[in-house]
Amino acid sequence: MTARIEHDLLGDETLPESAWYGIQTLRALRNFNITGVPIHHFSDLINTLTMVKEAAAEANYELGLLDCKKIKAIRQACQRIRDGELHDQFVVDLIQGGAGTSTNMNANEVIANLALITMGHQKGEYQYLHPNNDINKSQSTNDAYPTAARLAIVLSTQALVHSLNSIQKSLDQKADEFADILKMGRTQLQDAVPMTLGQEFKAFSVTLGEDIERIKEACTLLCEVNLGGTAIGTGLNTQRSYAAIAIEHLSRLSGLPVKSATHLIEATSDMGAFVTISSIQKRLAIKLSKICNDLRLLSSGPRAGLNEINLPAMQPGSSIMPGKINPVIPEAVNQTAFQVIGHDLTVTMAAEAGQLQLNAMEPVIVYNILNSMKMLSSAIYMLDHRCIRGITANKAHCHNQVKDSIGMITALVPYIGYDNASRIAKHALVSRSTVGEIILKEKLLDEATLNHLMSPANMTGPMEAAL
Amino acid sequence: MTARIEHDLLGDETLPESAWYGIQTLRALRNFNITGVPIHHFSDLINTLTMVKEAAAEANYELGLLDCKKIKAIRQACQRIRDGELHDQFVVDLIQGGAGTSTNMNANEVIANLALITMGHQKGEYQYLHPNNDINKSQSTNDAYPTAARLAIVLSTQALVHSLNSIQKSLDQKADEFADILKMGRTQLQDAVPMTLGQEFKAFSVTLGEDIERIKEACTLLCEVNLGGTAIGTGLNTQRSYAAIAIEHLSRLSGLPVKSATHLIEATSDMGAFVTISSIQKRLAIKLSKICNDLRLLSSGPRAGLNEINLPAMQPGSSIMPGKINPVIPEAVNQTAFQVIGHDLTVTMAAEAGQLQLNAMEPVIVYNILNSMKMLSSAIYMLDHRCIRGITANKAHCHNQVKDSIGMITALVPYIGYDNASRIAKHALVSRSTVGEIILKEKLLDEATLNHLMSPANMTGPMEAAL
Amino acid sequence: MTARIEHDLLGDETLPESAWYGIQTLRALRNFNITGVPIHHFSDLINTLTMVKEAAAEANYELGLLDCKKIKAIRQACQRIRDGELHDQFVVDLIQGGAGTSTNMNANEVIANLALITMGHQKGEYQYLHPNNDINKSQSTNDAYPTAARLAIVLSTQALVHSLNSIQKSLDQKADEFADILKMGRTQLQDAVPMTLGQEFKAFSVTLGEDIERIKEACTLLCEVNLGGTAIGTGLNTQRSYAAIAIEHLSRLSGLPVKSATHLIEATSDMGAFVTISSIQKRLAIKLSKICNDLRLLSSGPRAGLNEINLPAMQPGSSIMPGKINPVIPEAVNQTAFQVIGHDLTVTMAAEAGQLQLNAMEPVIVYNILNSMKMLSSAIYMLDHRCIRGITANKAHCHNQVKDSIGMITALVPYIGYDNASRIAKHALVSRSTVGEIILKEKLLDEATLNHLMSPANMTGPMEAAL
Amino acid sequence: MTARIEHDLLGDETLPESAWYGIQTLRALRNFNITGVPIHHFSDLINTLTMVKEAAAEANYELGLLDCKKIKAIRQACQRIRDGELHDQFVVDLIQGGAGTSTNMNANEVIANLALITMGHQKGEYQYLHPNNDINKSQSTNDAYPTAARLAIVLSTQALVHSLNSIQKSLDQKADEFADILKMGRTQLQDAVPMTLGQEFKAFSVTLGEDIERIKEACTLLCEVNLGGTAIGTGLNTQRSYAAIAIEHLSRLSGLPVKSATHLIEATSDMGAFVTISSIQKRLAIKLSKICNDLRLLSSGPRAGLNEINLPAMQPGSSIMPGKINPVIPEAVNQTAFQVIGHDLTVTMAAEAGQLQLNAMEPVIVYNILNSMKMLSSAIYMLDHRCIRGITANKAHCHNQVKDSIGMITALVPYIGYDNASRIAKHALVSRSTVGEIILKEKLLDEATLNHLMSPANMTGPMEAAL
Repeated sequence: MTARIEHDLLGDETLPESAWYGIQTLRALRNFNITGVPIHHFSDLINTLTMVKEAAAEANYELGLLDCKKIKAIRQACQRIRDGELHDQFVVDLIQGGAGTSTNMNANEVIANLALITMGHQKGEYQYLHPNNDINKSQSTNDAYPTAARLAIVLSTQALVHSLNSIQKSLDQKADEFADILKMGRTQLQDAVPMTLGQEFKAFSVTLGEDIERIKEACTLLCEVNLGGTAIGTGLNTQRSYAAIAIEHLSRLSGLPVKSATHLIEATSDMGAFVTISSIQKRLAIKLSKICNDLRLLSSGPRAGLNEINLPAMQPGSSIMPGKINPVIPEAVNQTAFQVIGHDLTVTMAAEAGQLQLNAMEPVIVYNILNSMKMLSSAIYMLDHRCIRGITANKAHCHNQVKDSIGMITALVPYIGYDNASRIAKHALVSRSTVGEIILKEKLLDEATLNHLMSPANMTGPMEAAL
Repeated sequence: MTARIEHDLLGDETLPESAWYGIQTLRALRNFNITGVPIHHFSDLINTLTMVKEAAAEANYELGLLDCKKIKAIRQACQRIRDGELHDQFVVDLIQGGAGTSTNMNANEVIANLALITMGHQKGEYQYLHPNNDINKSQSTNDAYPTAARLAIVLSTQALVHSLNSIQKSLDQKADEFADILKMGRTQLQDAVPMTLGQEFKAFSVTLGEDIERIKEACTLLCEVNLGGTAIGTGLNTQRSYAAIAIEHLSRLSGLPVKSATHLIEATSDMGAFVTISSIQKRLAIKLSKICNDLRLLSSGPRAGLNEINLPAMQPGSSIMPGKINPVIPEAVNQTAFQVIGHDLTVTMAAEAGQLQLNAMEPVIVYNILNSMKMLSSAIYMLDHRCIRGITANKAHCHNQVKDSIGMITALVPYIGYDNASRIAKHALVSRSTVGEIILKEKLLDEATLNHLMSPANMTGPMEAAL
Repeated sequence: MTARIEHDLLGDETLPESAWYGIQTLRALRNFNITGVPIHHFSDLINTLTMVKEAAAEANYELGLLDCKKIKAIRQACQRIRDGELHDQFVVDLIQGGAGTSTNMNANEVIANLALITMGHQKGEYQYLHPNNDINKSQSTNDAYPTAARLAIVLSTQALVHSLNSIQKSLDQKADEFADILKMGRTQLQDAVPMTLGQEFKAFSVTLGEDIERIKEACTLLCEVNLGGTAIGTGLNTQRSYAAIAIEHLSRLSGLPVKSATHLIEATSDMGAFVTISSIQKRLAIKLSKICNDLRLLSSGPRAGLNEINLPAMQPGSSIMPGKINPVIPEAVNQTAFQVIGHDLTVTMAAEAGQLQLNAMEPVIVYNILNSMKMLSSAIYMLDHRCIRGITANKAHCHNQVKDSIGMITALVPYIGYDNASRIAKHALVSRSTVGEIILKEKLLDEATLNHLMSPANMTGPMEAAL
Repeated sequence: MTARIEHDLLGDETLPESAWYGIQTLRALRNFNITGVPIHHFSDLINTLTMVKEAAAEANYELGLLDCKKIKAIRQACQRIRDGELHDQFVVDLIQGGAGTSTNMNANEVIANLALITMGHQKGEYQYLHPNNDINKSQSTNDAYPTAARLAIVLSTQALVHSLNSIQKSLDQKADEFADILKMGRTQLQDAVPMTLGQEFKAFSVTLGEDIERIKEACTLLCEVNLGGTAIGTGLNTQRSYAAIAIEHLSRLSGLPVKSATHLIEATSDMGAFVTISSIQKRLAIKLSKICNDLRLLSSGPRAGLNEINLPAMQPGSSIMPGKINPVIPEAVNQTAFQVIGHDLTVTMAAEAGQLQLNAMEPVIVYNILNSMKMLSSAIYMLDHRCIRGITANKAHCHNQVKDSIGMITALVPYIGYDNASRIAKHALVSRSTVGEIILKEKLLDEATLNHLMSPANMTGPMEAAL
């Protein structure tokens, strides 16, 4: 086999013998070299592209627009790619002009050539099966590409949700482990009232759990696709029943509840669902960053910090300071969060830049969402496995801080009154004695009562009405 | 009546005779002077503050912690404020330190003083009814303030949804009015395939309608409150049944489906629902900006632009250029959208800045969301009344552009074939003739068929299978 | 006097008798009601508008395009407005369509009417002096408005620089006051090596000082104006020498080194200088936020936090927690910083939205920069006067943390070797003894040497080569 | 050779035989897997790391802290790496915890091992030359890493400035080529007054040229480094003259005007210069995006758009629409701009997240700036070579639009008066005649005068005073 020549609107080009893609992909390769990140960095996108192509082909076949030989070859090619073949042939840079045309054509060309081989032909013999006329039949980039992109994003949430479920379990386990460690709660970084370290970790778990729900809600929006709309959503050059059939096949192939958008023209230029999922990625990033800020605060020290918990040591902290260990894992998560929040801004600006019947900036939107998804999954996995699971608590230190605290007096207000409480609080601060000592000395409460009131159960929840 | 002296932890201060607020509000007034925008700029927030205070008082009353005289006075004071009295006494700057303490105390103090008068006492005679001990009983700023803030945001969505419903109607009306105006659809600013101007306006309506749904979903999240959590969510110093009773009253008073957050410690520091509603404001801003970009493009000209529609003239456009009229209304909406997107970033950064058991940056979050809500409502009202309703179409020009277009050939591909279509497209571009002329000249179609195929019905939807 | 009727391109309108503005301002008032913040919120902008108008009038007078009577009246009117008269007549909302036309016309109309009265005529008798033909002569909104806006921003930096100079002094004073308080330096929130509290405060001063330089650099860019470019920068309808004369007068009137942009067409649509000053505001916001984060960390506690410094108590911290004092001033500064960073995003998006020969989004850009300027000035003043100046240090606690620290061993590495240092670090951590105790016990150093090496001078700077 | 075992604070690990890095790099490799982008993606950073290491070694050598054999080996190793060797050994992910420790140690370890081989030893025989004790001597990550990062950014501006210079030349060439093509200038997308297409392209050139100046200014800031500050900027464990000597060598090795920051403690935690360069990248992105928006507008059509210029066809535009060509290159630049603006937000958030004596988020800052630099360079190169240079103009169409325009009447105002101009403008719009026709018909000007006034020279600049 040797290099082949292909032709398009702009003229002839020679394809290297090894290439399964065709002339339009080649032009895109030359045109775009911005990120260095090609499509095959995200296999979910390759997979959903083949699903869209296969679903469209099935609909075309049912409508008599593709013959039996072609549909068989297309089916087989799409399945083989989904099984992992030829992913390295999806080569176009993810930031590309043309609203995804190059990604769409990359898929059309690779599928066509693989199917041609299956049919006993040579790569490039498009007279037997054509990237545009057959693989792209009844489609435009403007419906095929966003449909594939949306479903790719949905598929990519699966790894994220998995890592979230896992870290939730680890946090719940820590919540149980630390259930009886009494510590000072802090508001505005000032000593407030007592709580347990278990409650603190449970709150981390709960807050992440809520984002799993948000992600799932967004997936419902993402499953509304504009397949069948073709160039601008009017469905020009499709048959009236095509869209419904294609979407049914797409549901089957993807295993997702795909449905048609209610207004295909709106759906063709609307970036709403992308903005929504990106916003949720941002929301999750905010929460992760807050949790990691807390972990770093709680483990600050060891001597001149809060020192309530110990993060597992993952690497020596300093070349100049012997024995220093740093919270490197939470720090990397913080940075990931900032990256994701930056990506959300990119999505925002790109979404705003749509004009008339299309948003030509979709490629950068899709790239940023898929990239954030991957980074969030990795960061959460890292945080779970390389940090949360290994956290230990400095129980005695936590307890002592409560005993020494002024803030614990809040729990005694209903028993000794607000005025006494205020007076003792001031006194304790100045004299550097504990609140408990002063109360006992002043005989406001006896020791047994005081100890009872200062028990974790009493200080970390509502009080019994009886008292 | 003369000026009165009040006292707190830090000492004495003289309140002006006219002041219904007390010493803590006075301190806050002196401390914070950043935005110049006081609480009373947002009456929804004043109203929900009184609802929270009244609901808490009712619960305290049922639990025997407030007597009959006090609850009656509190009820009456809260209702009078909601009826519009004393709003000018809510004076603290919306950007404030203390996580909302000053806003909470402003409410506590005004309510206390108004209730005191009702009870026949003087302002400042807190021995009969105390801002902290009575009005704030069983509460902390950290649950009372965010609860009021969340419900205020929910209430403020009502005006927004109203303006969205109204503009949708106007857009739908225009969609009907323009239903038979055939025009070129454009992708990537290049002539693509035909559509109707009505379809274009319908898409605007549909896309805004989707955001009404998103706003309603977010309100459900916002109605989950942490009332009863007190300082850090442990419910310290409340009785076990307090939270449920208070929330029941709050639902009744607000008419909203308020419910308790599942984990009050998490809920006390979590900004998730604020981030979500802010993201939806951003999403709406993106859509509005895109629509206004389109309106400005479509009305560009009058001679050297697209000139498909005319926006109503709202003011002379230029002092130097006679007769110039500018798209001032869409331009103002674009700018509003950029402002809202900026606010969303402020919310993002503030939400990320939470530490341990509280997010001290809540005031700036609440301020930005309420501000965006007001600005979006005004902008949409303006766009609806001062632009959309007065838009007219240049029907002949739109039609001529389709006739002259190369892009309309796409609609003929199924009838004359892709190869003929490509050849004719190139030929038309170079010779500056129309596609129709060439087709007729080459007798590829007869005039009747061509006219039929070029009818709006044929060019703006899927084709009949029969053809 | 009674209401008067004015006329423009769109028809007649009745002006209230009290109005010094005219019909175009009236239309703008009705059209735009987005922010509720009118021009007169920023008197710098009013002042520079009158400077531009007066400078243009002087140039027109010199070129024989305005007569003696008119120039005298215009001069006088502009000066009176700069002296504080009629600021309440600058009423248009700062978010407005029309690229500033309404602000420009508001100035033209108020100046014309005030000058008319001076000339012995009535308001509205524009046949004697016309807002467009005379006040706006040789100008377009597109050069007059951005020129005024740029200089207003420059003037508004003066208050900011003043507050920065002042806070620098306060920080320097604290640096001196705390010069001999030895404390632990922290990297990544982990105990690192010793420093003085004075060094820490000096660093705050130095970092803010750098931004004063950046602001001044940006002012140079802002002083390059496009006055004389008229509608699109070609200078259409001006005389060739007009621009130079007008700019000379503008320099004189403003006292600023105003100069003409090198390419007026570029300058008319370019938002570069606005982006630059907004970026510097953001940079300053970042630094202020970091400083306030540090102040809050260093004052955390009092028992379960770092507790190195005490912020002055500005208001009671909590209604539920007796004696709690919160870092409300730094918290308000943090929130201001987030607001400013949000504004910068608004500026960014608006700057990107320019099209062809103009950026119609300039009003929102100018509004956000002026607003940030005001907020930053207020926040810095507040931080200086209500926080920094009252900070006290907990010297003993700081010293003890150094003595107790593991990190101070880094300073001993050159004397006892890295291996000894690592071993002792680990040993100290586990045994909860101090590094000093172990070293003395192991007789690695004698007490005198140890004390010498642990002196502030030795631990907080490079070592003498002699050792 | 076989795998070797290395040891650090946390224990032993086996290094693969092929690895030139050591145990700490290995740990970092396992810890961080977020972006998939390793250090060697940015060779500028590798190069400046070796410069810093070599400069520090020279200073240590001069101070008698390194012997002759070691300095020779270090020099040679650093030079060989700068010559391109072992770049693939710089493997750590660019998002990493530890404030750059892993990047610093990766450099220390690779240099040590390469130098060891040079000295005739084996990899890992650190007793002869130690990554920490020798290569990192007198340094901490906290001064070595930011110093290298800053200089890497400075070096990376060179490619950017080169591409900017080149595109400026191309734009200037087009400005010359289009110097006599008269066209309508547009403000707010409405026809304004005439200009030449050459003026429009010159404005693009000028605006980009200004950013070259801004970049150079920022480089001055970036060349101020904290080398010699060690852990927190106090210079602990360095000799007093070390910093000056090291910086002198660094200047020599880098060829850059490196100098010491004025306050090393401030400089160690300050991110100001990073924020500044990132802001300038954003400013440049805004300008590029605006230019590309204009190019896409000006080339819109071909029939139903502005159609003033033609972008070179780089790839077929559509699979469904025959003959469609899209502005794919500007679209890719727009997307790059949005990406860069997103990166700037990431930098902003990371810069704000610094705490006390260090900003642990520096790695994500450095990554984003370097990434933006690369993307901007590529995008500008692409825009220059694949778009600007091939642009052609539709001269006749441009001219006709001026002739047909209402806006050109502005140029006649000084000759026929404002009232006549307004009346004729309205009349022309309604009657669809040209302004010129009406003027000639009304005999307001004779044909020769009209033609003279409508000449490019007259309509695209200030008028001669003589008229």
